[in-house]
Amino acid sequence: MPNEKPKIVIVGGGFGGIKLAKLFAKENVEITIVDRHNFHLFQPLLYQVSTSVLSTDEIAYPIRSFFRDCKNVHLFMAKAQGVDQERNVLLTNHGEISYDYLILAAGATTNFFGMKEVEEHSFGMKTLQEALHIRNHVLHEFERACKPYRTPEDRKKRMTFVVVGGGPTGVEEAGALTELIEIQKKEIHELDFNDVQVYLIEATDKVLPMMTPDLQQETIRVLRKKGVNVMLNTQVVGYDGDVLKLKSGAEIPTTTVIWAAGVRAVDMMKNCGGECARDGRIWIEENLMVRGAVHQNVFAIGDCAAFMHGDMKRPLPTVAPVATQQAVVAHKNIMKLIKGDTNLEKFVYKDLGAMATIGRGKAVVNKPKMTGFMAWCAWMLVHLIRLAGAHTNFTVALKWTWNFLSGTRLGRIITNISLDTK
Amino acid sequence: MPNEKPKIVIVGGGFGGIKLAKLFAKENVEITIVDRHNFHLFQPLLYQVSTSVLSTDEIAYPIRSFFRDCKNVHLFMAKAQGVDQERNVLLTNHGEISYDYLILAAGATTNFFGMKEVEEHSFGMKTLQEALHIRNHVLHEFERACKPYRTPEDRKKRMTFVVVGGGPTGVEEAGALTELIEIQKKEIHELDFNDVQVYLIEATDKVLPMMTPDLQQETIRVLRKKGVNVMLNTQVVGYDGDVLKLKSGAEIPTTTVIWAAGVRAVDMMKNCGGECARDGRIWIEENLMVRGAVHQNVFAIGDCAAFMHGDMKRPLPTVAPVATQQAVVAHKNIMKLIKGDTNLEKFVYKDLGAMATIGRGKAVVNKPKMTGFMAWCAWMLVHLIRLAGAHTNFTVALKWTWNFLSGTRLGRIITNISLDTK
Repeated sequence: MPNEKPKIVIVGGGFGGIKLAKLFAKENVEITIVDRHNFHLFQPLLYQVSTSVLSTDEIAYPIRSFFRDCKNVHLFMAKAQGVDQERNVLLTNHGEISYDYLILAAGATTNFFGMKEVEEHSFGMKTLQEALHIRNHVLHEFERACKPYRTPEDRKKRMTFVVVGGGPTGVEEAGALTELIEIQKKEIHELDFNDVQVYLIEATDKVLPMMTPDLQQETIRVLRKKGVNVMLNTQVVGYDGDVLKLKSGAEIPTTTVIWAAGVRAVDMMKNCGGECARDGRIWIEENLMVRGAVHQNVFAIGDCAAFMHGDMKRPLPTVAPVATQQAVVAHKNIMKLIKGDTNLEKFVYKDLGAMATIGRGKAVVNKPKMTGFMAWCAWMLVHLIRLAGAHTNFTVALKWTWNFLSGTRLGRIITNISLDTK
Repeated sequence: MPNEKPKIVIVGGGFGGIKLAKLFAKENVEITIVDRHNFHLFQPLLYQVSTSVLSTDEIAYPIRSFFRDCKNVHLFMAKAQGVDQERNVLLTNHGEISYDYLILAAGATTNFFGMKEVEEHSFGMKTLQEALHIRNHVLHEFERACKPYRTPEDRKKRMTFVVVGGGPTGVEEAGALTELIEIQKKEIHELDFNDVQVYLIEATDKVLPMMTPDLQQETIRVLRKKGVNVMLNTQVVGYDGDVLKLKSGAEIPTTTVIWAAGVRAVDMMKNCGGECARDGRIWIEENLMVRGAVHQNVFAIGDCAAFMHGDMKRPLPTVAPVATQQAVVAHKNIMKLIKGDTNLEKFVYKDLGAMATIGRGKAVVNKPKMTGFMAWCAWMLVHLIRLAGAHTNFTVALKWTWNFLSGTRLGRIITNISLDTK
């Protein structure tokens, strides 16, 4: 007898994909998660890996561990490349996977807005590998700057760290960098720390656009107090790995540009048989089905989907709560279709507010409005609750407490030195 | 006025080098540690990183953090390449460093005994990068084996893990691998675990040569009970990445060979102006000075030095206690020389015994003789005490307790997937 359970395929093991798989795991269906990685990544804390606060294992959780007791959930580790809606198959670099229902929850990648040179020389902040890459590079630049044969210009260039983009990622990264530098200052006795500079460059006239103006001002005030050179209304036009060029004609010599200025959907979305928005997100209906889906069985949620309705001026933001809330509705609608009910539910987004840390002991929260230490405690609590795995929660809480009290960072380990041991 | 403090240069931030620097930090001297890495590595726990138990940050500690309050200790991150004893300079890939006194504590690397093909295709177990490499590879092989298009032969080959070498590293790695496999078994629902095999191959007729015969037998018994196929008197003659060839003519198809069958001194020892033993270690006098040192100011300790005296049949073993005990004497002798006293102390090794884990809850200790759970507790205690950093001690203790109770391993994260996110 053939297996008659409906086959659900989920592309992506991010917040949306994992939530979906957990919901479907309880149903009489077979679920396959397709992801390039074998882990779920807690992206909001990537900046802490990049600045040596947390370890990779603390923000990455094996996807299979979520579903230890769910024999109907499978992981297919592969890179999804497109969808053949006519034939109901997902195309991957490890072959085709057929589906009865497909949910695209493939996420977003860094948007360099077509600037190839900038893309080649600056660091993205979307994957675990990129965060480790930044960590290794920044720590290594300190060691390189210590070498006696450096010219003052060379040394200064290596000690100039530029973060582009005033959203939560950019703000958090810039704040965390200044703290990493404070610790380096205590331990690197050979270096003049007057040479060290951190820039936060933002093209618009504000940081944290989702916050109220007073919280934005507070964020800038705290960043400046920490020593971050916040530059608003400043547009980057080029970067060759050596000199960052601004639209004003000004130049900043630097070997480190971290690009947190925008996201776009992953490339595969172009090959899913739907229409995409300018930032590559696939347009979806109010019931979360991909617009114009051939067999009414392809859905998309989260960062890779463009959802807009009523009087909205732009698609929903690329944040975790959108993905997880959409997962709930996508699950409901697919279960309805399986049961033959075509009266699908419409998705309505409930904005739960936003929060961002500006370094150790300081944060801003907009619902309810909070700043300073209390906001930081709220931020910690929310992030700890959402982190996967009880043990991880505990060790991360411990590390944060330890870092807050002692101001040390144990993760200052450069791991990308060649394997050659001879 | 020129700086007249004697300049001490230490090559290597391992157990010996760090101990030396700590001793010299209290003297009126300037110390420079030269290391390829910016961290001290706790090598005895490398096997736990390779099998997803611990994170890199838990067994690697920033060298500069040891010397936060010692302004006379410097790190020069570079690869030491040789010594020009005539001119009193150390040669590195970042230029020359002059010294008044030089101590070589450069450590050891994997010894493939000239088998180039084996070296190219198998995994060493001496660096953090190598341990991560093993972790990534082993976890990835499980995911690759799950792919439906594999032939049974291909799948079986990927599910065969071979450890070569019956010393502590080999025994601990083989034991830890079986436990990692037990956890994978609970979570990978697509795979037939009857295909999974772990081999421990040893050329001589025993494992753990430093232990008594009854402890050796106990070790083999426990390993076999865990499912390890222990093969004694078995010599490897070749490995092409696909099939491991034994001297008997037998072949084991496998994609994973971990080589823990021997160590030799790092290559730079050949260029230090001294005479080297067959395994590349530089011969030293009883006062730890390099034999035939031109200016009586070059010492060597630990794994890179060959020390033999009286009725010893072979140089001292390559273990941490040798290095740290030698550091104490090297420090004393150099301080004597600085003060004009040429009556140097002779080194005498005090054997403190040996210990090895054979997996969760089991170990063997030879002084005092212990096996089983008590030996494992002793092993944990000794390793925790020696780990650098109070916070690390705490998190590692916590992780071990957690792993023991829950049998889970959070570090099953494959991090070497390409940076390409598109």
